[in-house]
Amino acid sequence: MISQQELSVSTRGRGTYDLSRQVQKAVSESGVTAGMCNVFIRHTSASLMLCENADPDVMTDLETFMSRQVPDGDPMFIHTAEGPDDMPAHVRSVLTQSDLNIPVRDGRCALGTWQGIYLWEHRHHGHNRRVFLTIQGE
Amino acid sequence: MISQQELSVSTRGRGTYDLSRQVQKAVSESGVTAGMCNVFIRHTSASLMLCENADPDVMTDLETFMSRQVPDGDPMFIHTAEGPDDMPAHVRSVLTQSDLNIPVRDGRCALGTWQGIYLWEHRHHGHNRRVFLTIQGE
Amino acid sequence: MISQQELSVSTRGRGTYDLSRQVQKAVSESGVTAGMCNVFIRHTSASLMLCENADPDVMTDLETFMSRQVPDGDPMFIHTAEGPDDMPAHVRSVLTQSDLNIPVRDGRCALGTWQGIYLWEHRHHGHNRRVFLTIQGE
Repeated sequence: MISQQELSVSTRGRGTYDLSRQVQKAVSESGVTAGMCNVFIRHTSASLMLCENADPDVMTDLETFMSRQVPDGDPMFIHTAEGPDDMPAHVRSVLTQSDLNIPVRDGRCALGTWQGIYLWEHRHHGHNRRVFLTIQGE
Repeated sequence: MISQQELSVSTRGRGTYDLSRQVQKAVSESGVTAGMCNVFIRHTSASLMLCENADPDVMTDLETFMSRQVPDGDPMFIHTAEGPDDMPAHVRSVLTQSDLNIPVRDGRCALGTWQGIYLWEHRHHGHNRRVFLTIQGE
Repeated sequence: MISQQELSVSTRGRGTYDLSRQVQKAVSESGVTAGMCNVFIRHTSASLMLCENADPDVMTDLETFMSRQVPDGDPMFIHTAEGPDDMPAHVRSVLTQSDLNIPVRDGRCALGTWQGIYLWEHRHHGHNRRVFLTIQGE
């Protein structure tokens, strides 16, 4: 049994967006009780991650860390067509995930208690991001 | 055909733990001969990786690298509820993997000769980590 | 329905190699119209990524970034059996991906417009890299 659908996520610029409810809803509606849910982002300047879902400071700290690791406007970058956050967005995407693969058990994502599913927008401007879901199993 | 089970991995603090045998055993027992094996960690302060399985110095060097990249107690972090290794553990998890997806062929994980499956505990204290396996195929 | 095959990719040393066409060809030939395509590299000193496929400067910048983050010959590394790029190759692999999981829809990889599938060779010498494909679905 396979269920596929595309989510559209409107971002308001750099930051993280919690997709956990939307993904869980799609899994519930798919009718799959045991199998896998693949979450795939169809972009190279935004990415996905599983991360702690309780304290918003975690997201702040992740952003602080990434901004230090991959500074906007770093003069080593030559691909600057879309501005100082263009190439950093690609690097940040490569260092995190474009796809997540979450087990489905009893018709639900078998996430840990503190795990949330996040889209990480790496560009400063808002974008309309397409996230493709594939739920496969019995 | 789908087989799911949860492994429990007791860690003794920061470091890597080889799961290759346990995963391979689950694949063998599943009866799946061709398909995929998903390994999923249900935590956000420990992660998974595929890495060189021959020379233990590789694990030492990975730890040295990560400790330099994401220093414990870095004053930029504000999420310090559980101590100086709390937020670094989340960052290290985001920079590595929460899920691995390994092909199954002839009833075995189709790993390369030098590939091992590792859990990386990022907290200094030991934890009981839950790793969920989904083996799906024919 | 499952289709599995191994690609052999001859690299000419450090750099990125576009696998998009080969993966797409395998998906088309598999007969799977809806499902998943797993791309798995059977090595620990080369890795995989999805990245921008239009401007070659992006690949140059990624290489510049990674060479700065994980310098060849860094004296902190003790695993140097195969030379100054040995341990950096393992670290670079751990920071990127060993497996990619791409949805298949209408018999094609459901990549975004600007997404390409790349093998990243991290060693300075050329190698023969084995990439295993599993396409599973209806």
